[in-house]
Amino acid sequence: MPQFMDIHHGMKDITTDQLREAYQDNVAIEGEEGVHFERAWADPESGTVYCLSEAPSAEAVKRIHERTGHPADEIHPVPLTV
Amino acid sequence: MPQFMDIHHGMKDITTDQLREAYQDNVAIEGEEGVHFERAWADPESGTVYCLSEAPSAEAVKRIHERTGHPADEIHPVPLTV
Repeated sequence: MPQFMDIHHGMKDITTDQLREAYQDNVAIEGEEGVHFERAWADPESGTVYCLSEAPSAEAVKRIHERTGHPADEIHPVPLTV
Repeated sequence: MPQFMDIHHGMKDITTDQLREAYQDNVAIEGEEGVHFERAWADPESGTVYCLSEAPSAEAVKRIHERTGHPADEIHPVPLTV
């Protein structure tokens, strides 16, 4: 299944608890869109969150994020991996 | 050790071989700066490469990328992970 990297800006001062909570919100409903969130990383200083997922489409990733109130600013397919 | 996500723009049409080669260039000398590259992902369409590493500092990641001729456009610490 295709992989996607999505990016959220404006998350300055995000805490581990907030990151975990947002991630779990997404994981709780990911199956409804055939998405699987693999990992997420956050930089509280620049306010950036990176989310790696497997999904049938970028639209599916977008919908999960929107439904949980954590819309992604960018969603990039990442077909190449090493 | 701190984790970093670095981003390279302008890599439109990058191939799997080119991604692997660039990654291996970095891995070949990473130990000289105490860096360990964990994974990399690429989106040939937008020309974006994401690189996840463990390193003593962003400067160390920057130096490895510069020495191998693959300078990073952004290097973000990502102290939070889920």
